[in-house]
Amino acid sequence: MREFGVENLDALALGAALLGTGGGGDPYVGRLMAHQALTEHGPVQVLDPSEVPDDAVCAMSAVMGAPTVLVEKLPGRGEQIAAFRALEQHIGREITHVICAEIGGLNSTLPIVTAARTGLPIVDCDAMGRAFPEIQMSTPTLHDIGASPIAIADDKGNVVVIDAKNNHWAETFARSITVDMGAAAFIALFVQTGAQIKEAMIPNTLDLAERIGSAILGARQRGDDPIAAAIEVAGGFRLFEGKVTDVERKTSAGFARGKMTIAGLAKDAGANLTVEFQNENLIATRSGTVLASVPDLITVVDADTGEPITTEELKYGLRVEVVGIPCHEMWRTPEGLELVGPRYFGYNVEFVPIEKIWER
Amino acid sequence: MREFGVENLDALALGAALLGTGGGGDPYVGRLMAHQALTEHGPVQVLDPSEVPDDAVCAMSAVMGAPTVLVEKLPGRGEQIAAFRALEQHIGREITHVICAEIGGLNSTLPIVTAARTGLPIVDCDAMGRAFPEIQMSTPTLHDIGASPIAIADDKGNVVVIDAKNNHWAETFARSITVDMGAAAFIALFVQTGAQIKEAMIPNTLDLAERIGSAILGARQRGDDPIAAAIEVAGGFRLFEGKVTDVERKTSAGFARGKMTIAGLAKDAGANLTVEFQNENLIATRSGTVLASVPDLITVVDADTGEPITTEELKYGLRVEVVGIPCHEMWRTPEGLELVGPRYFGYNVEFVPIEKIWER
Repeated sequence: MREFGVENLDALALGAALLGTGGGGDPYVGRLMAHQALTEHGPVQVLDPSEVPDDAVCAMSAVMGAPTVLVEKLPGRGEQIAAFRALEQHIGREITHVICAEIGGLNSTLPIVTAARTGLPIVDCDAMGRAFPEIQMSTPTLHDIGASPIAIADDKGNVVVIDAKNNHWAETFARSITVDMGAAAFIALFVQTGAQIKEAMIPNTLDLAERIGSAILGARQRGDDPIAAAIEVAGGFRLFEGKVTDVERKTSAGFARGKMTIAGLAKDAGANLTVEFQNENLIATRSGTVLASVPDLITVVDADTGEPITTEELKYGLRVEVVGIPCHEMWRTPEGLELVGPRYFGYNVEFVPIEKIWER
Repeated sequence: MREFGVENLDALALGAALLGTGGGGDPYVGRLMAHQALTEHGPVQVLDPSEVPDDAVCAMSAVMGAPTVLVEKLPGRGEQIAAFRALEQHIGREITHVICAEIGGLNSTLPIVTAARTGLPIVDCDAMGRAFPEIQMSTPTLHDIGASPIAIADDKGNVVVIDAKNNHWAETFARSITVDMGAAAFIALFVQTGAQIKEAMIPNTLDLAERIGSAILGARQRGDDPIAAAIEVAGGFRLFEGKVTDVERKTSAGFARGKMTIAGLAKDAGANLTVEFQNENLIATRSGTVLASVPDLITVVDADTGEPITTEELKYGLRVEVVGIPCHEMWRTPEGLELVGPRYFGYNVEFVPIEKIWER
């Protein structure tokens, strides 16, 4: 057990933005909300999964929707707890531990808000080891754990509870309701026992994100290379360096979808890299060659500061580096790749682990 | 109290089809399902609203979606009761009485299936006195009674429960989920006390529908004019006689929308009537003059048999009469017209009661 307070927040938000692979929402918004909650309620307890009793009732607290919308439609306070309470009421039990849906952007800092406001501990784990755009893309799905019941709440006081037969249906229904609610809503989902999260969730990713963030902040202070520092902690590769020359982006069906083109500079001068995204970056291609693809992580960072750039912040002229990081091994199994591999997202390519591509 | 058995079914289905104003789904499907349920479980008890205890827990059982879809995707048995049970579980009380959402097509016969299969009595009332396409278009809305919680179930075992702040939001969410479920799903909704239904529901519409149906069947047997017989019971007007020459129809956003054109015959020879619909017939116009509009009832019937023709059965060449019937007085209040008047459906005309139009 450790305490997580206001002083831990900058590093977590920064590291989670890197692991968020362009999605997960504006980390600034989540940091603001968590700052306020931690100031009002004091630090929250962070437990290692091994410290959680096997019969604990754990549930995710998360925001769902298009990150592009979340920048303009700031999440409120009431609906986050409303979704959590509606889930408790539906299952007829009190939730004892808060868990993270993903370790990217808003969804790594907002569960801290839920923990602070409910007084519950948060467990150091998440269901993606990164950010992904859809609910079923969660490691518990690989362990046959249902996302349902899912409670969804909006800022108008509407609440919807979904009991879907599988996690793909859960995503379909939750996405429709989220779109109706204005393309962003709070959800509470994936009720699991303590025993289940030890098997089905990816452990210690809050800690990893905080260490990545600290490494970047420390390197900046020392005048060292922040990107090198982040990669040293996260493990990974510098895929490409250049200037953003084009961004296509649209918000459709509750997602921010699009593509960016980066014109190479320095060692990459003369080449172009395209990165396609659906909330999160999905695939990076250089002259027809895939440099990295889902489920491995692809993050665009500011070339000078190492600050991760979300898909909604992308714009012409930014000088960036593109960083690739291997995903958790659960995603590299046949079942994992079926759920979140390049083919699921419509790319007719075989997944090749990023470290194999860079060995060549 | 009276008993409703297999022998009452033909008349109810026929009369409800007339009051269904083209919508409410294929009465044949509902009659088949009710026939099976009544044969298996025996007759159901039909109570007059005055016989219902004030503290009774009444709830509607209905099908939601595009009638065009219901013809091809027959509703199953499990999901109807599943929605009803999910609503009971959500409110934490047992439902004591079944009520009808609308007295049109499927939704007047399917509650009889629910009553037969649950062993509960059904109350002789409905929330529209006709059929309407959207949930909030219910007389309880005029009495500030919430449609929520609404339970929705499909044939795959999915269940969604909606707790919306108002009945327009309830419609929005339920429609999205229905579309996701394949454009047709079972719902249970509008939990009301016995005291509330006596105020907020339109009484004795099951009886009215059965009397209309009996009148048509009787006239056919005697060789009399079945349309005249129906109008005598329902009250109303013969608006137009002719041949269907054009039908435009599309299923969009969970509705069957479209327009028919009827070329006049006999006394209407040389004139054209257009009838526009959204599941139900909305407005009938002859050479730019409105002959009838929502909330008054507009039903197209076969010119020979008086058999009501639903919007999905419309086709070129049918010889038809168009019948208009005054709606319940609750719909003619300013609040009623705001909810279901022509302007709500996008027609920039003032509602004029059908009997005023025909006085001229």
